[in-house]
Amino acid sequence: MADVVAFDAKSNEGDTLVVAQEAGGVLRLTLNAPPANALSRAMMRELAGALEAAAASASVRVVVISAAGTSIFSAGHDLAEIDAHRADADEGRAFFEEVVGGCADLMQAIVMHEKPVIAEVNGLATAAGCQLVASCDLAVCTDRATFCTPGVNIGLFCSMPMVALSRTVARKQAMEMLLTGETIDAGTAKEFGLVNRVVPNEYLRTVVDKYAASIAAKSAHAVRVGKQAFYRQAEMSQKEAYADAARVMVENMMADDAREGIAAFLDQRVPRWPRA
Amino acid sequence: MADVVAFDAKSNEGDTLVVAQEAGGVLRLTLNAPPANALSRAMMRELAGALEAAAASASVRVVVISAAGTSIFSAGHDLAEIDAHRADADEGRAFFEEVVGGCADLMQAIVMHEKPVIAEVNGLATAAGCQLVASCDLAVCTDRATFCTPGVNIGLFCSMPMVALSRTVARKQAMEMLLTGETIDAGTAKEFGLVNRVVPNEYLRTVVDKYAASIAAKSAHAVRVGKQAFYRQAEMSQKEAYADAARVMVENMMADDAREGIAAFLDQRVPRWPRA
Amino acid sequence: MADVVAFDAKSNEGDTLVVAQEAGGVLRLTLNAPPANALSRAMMRELAGALEAAAASASVRVVVISAAGTSIFSAGHDLAEIDAHRADADEGRAFFEEVVGGCADLMQAIVMHEKPVIAEVNGLATAAGCQLVASCDLAVCTDRATFCTPGVNIGLFCSMPMVALSRTVARKQAMEMLLTGETIDAGTAKEFGLVNRVVPNEYLRTVVDKYAASIAAKSAHAVRVGKQAFYRQAEMSQKEAYADAARVMVENMMADDAREGIAAFLDQRVPRWPRA
Repeated sequence: MADVVAFDAKSNEGDTLVVAQEAGGVLRLTLNAPPANALSRAMMRELAGALEAAAASASVRVVVISAAGTSIFSAGHDLAEIDAHRADADEGRAFFEEVVGGCADLMQAIVMHEKPVIAEVNGLATAAGCQLVASCDLAVCTDRATFCTPGVNIGLFCSMPMVALSRTVARKQAMEMLLTGETIDAGTAKEFGLVNRVVPNEYLRTVVDKYAASIAAKSAHAVRVGKQAFYRQAEMSQKEAYADAARVMVENMMADDAREGIAAFLDQRVPRWPRA
Repeated sequence: MADVVAFDAKSNEGDTLVVAQEAGGVLRLTLNAPPANALSRAMMRELAGALEAAAASASVRVVVISAAGTSIFSAGHDLAEIDAHRADADEGRAFFEEVVGGCADLMQAIVMHEKPVIAEVNGLATAAGCQLVASCDLAVCTDRATFCTPGVNIGLFCSMPMVALSRTVARKQAMEMLLTGETIDAGTAKEFGLVNRVVPNEYLRTVVDKYAASIAAKSAHAVRVGKQAFYRQAEMSQKEAYADAARVMVENMMADDAREGIAAFLDQRVPRWPRA
Repeated sequence: MADVVAFDAKSNEGDTLVVAQEAGGVLRLTLNAPPANALSRAMMRELAGALEAAAASASVRVVVISAAGTSIFSAGHDLAEIDAHRADADEGRAFFEEVVGGCADLMQAIVMHEKPVIAEVNGLATAAGCQLVASCDLAVCTDRATFCTPGVNIGLFCSMPMVALSRTVARKQAMEMLLTGETIDAGTAKEFGLVNRVVPNEYLRTVVDKYAASIAAKSAHAVRVGKQAFYRQAEMSQKEAYADAARVMVENMMADDAREGIAAFLDQRVPRWPRA
């Protein structure tokens, strides 16, 4: 495609665990270690680097996280990698702290990212893979996608995925996934609020591209201030939240984008965003 | 109707933006600026005044917020009014602060109102109109009603509606409405938890009247202490919430209404509320 | 059944309000005051005692709370008991404080219990009975089960049940139950997230037993640290939650159960939990 421009993520050297492609303001980051697309230490580092570059990029307006292969979005952390580090002098503690800390930073970087992040889920999303879906602002999945937090089956409760999951789905539903480790299907994930849309497998990319393009066409300024205010106010009392939102709203009203957007609306024309 | 008594809201002078009618303990406040029923500065002021009068009234037990016209519940703030104030010496800042501050006060006044407030949604509820629905304790809508927070389309993210919306629907569902600006139908609004019931268009008022009358027949004392405790405990830790609720419950048990209500229940008769 | 071992709950003396049976790591506590299974002061004391014993027991891994009789799971507090204490010198205040305080302690003991607690709901769960269901980690009900918080009908708002209910279902749904006192059916309870599964009446126990056995087969260590972390992080900001979860996760990775679980997973064999 002529309009695809390679994204210059610093981490994309040598073997590429995260493939980055940008087109029309939409940056597609593809987890590229099929079939499991494990969130190994290296994969998380590359994904974090690509997200950081996306935040700094003037052209990127929306980020999509997708996965290579046909059946697994991401199987979570690399258990072989974890097991191997038990041979370390400290029985793995330093490595575990690095993996877990890196994961916490990555997931929070998605939530706090100033650009919307959409998960495009083509298959199984398990453990930290499920956490990745829960951490994105929006998620679209194929009707074949499945989700689980099965750490409890291997003696390692999904305590980290739990943070994202419990902020996305209702309490008993999160507990069911965490305590039983059972897999839920795409329809149940939609019912729980873990994904926004379920689409036929063959249309997944088409729908996500359309969805992402629609958001990329909005005022980047409004999207940025709005997304950041969303997660900030979510942790406040109602009173504090309204005080914060009122401040954000007045500044947004004073900004060029709202001036143009409201004028365009009243003139019944398409807005031309000044900061595009 | 013989039992309809005009409600003496102070604001109802001259052109009336909010029509108030009281019958059987139910105060119906109708947004009366069709077709858009915009939440202009004047409309918000009248609605706030009517709610204040309702709080002080001994006879009002339940408030219904409905809208005149056949297709729009409320289109949110008055964009022409906002745009006109850009010509002010301060480019509108003082007016914007007044509108946004007034909106924050109005919505919190509904949540903190000591009497239940029910939204009766006959059509489109958009931006601050959607926020109004989200802020009410309960909402009933017609099967033709639709909901959206489309500020992002005009460069003005719905940061204020977000506060109410994100306390009513799940995180990804709120984000979908806010980031895409897309309109959801009545069935989706019920699935999201934004409304309690969807009814055929021709029965909307009948159902709301019955619903409101049922609540108006309860102990006003119990409803008041319960509603206020609900939103208070929602912002507390579980431990604090139980301490607060335990205190409320014991006082409620000591009060005349519970004494009469429990006695009536044990005698299998209809209670006669002492504070009616 | 040969594998049923009587559970030595200290409270099970004389007339037994809570029948305890243990089999295969699953402790079944049956509310045994049919038909109403009221949460009288004595019933709450016995249930609290049985839960305390379950926490201390090395063999118990999962607790099920079920009810005797065929139509009522629990009708909540004993209103006749409450009414009778109005004749006390203090008009009942000391007794009410004892009942309400005992209830608050009982419900929090379930949430903070280090072992999963599953409600098996065979019929009507009302007021504190509904709170009991909401307080359990998981709930399975028969298709005939119904749920309500009808205190408002007797002048006594369900302020205590509200704490559990509002942490389990969405805001407007909780408010509908609390303000109208109306009864919802099993399907609606599942839709609201108040129960996890609805099963045909005749299979209720079979399904719960299978469900409980599946959780009892997990690593008790992982379940314990995970459950406790769940409710702890639910009250934290995202940042604090990730810091807490990261600490829990690293300790869990260092523990014997995860070592065995991951090794078993990589070897494709069934894990043998060291702490079983």
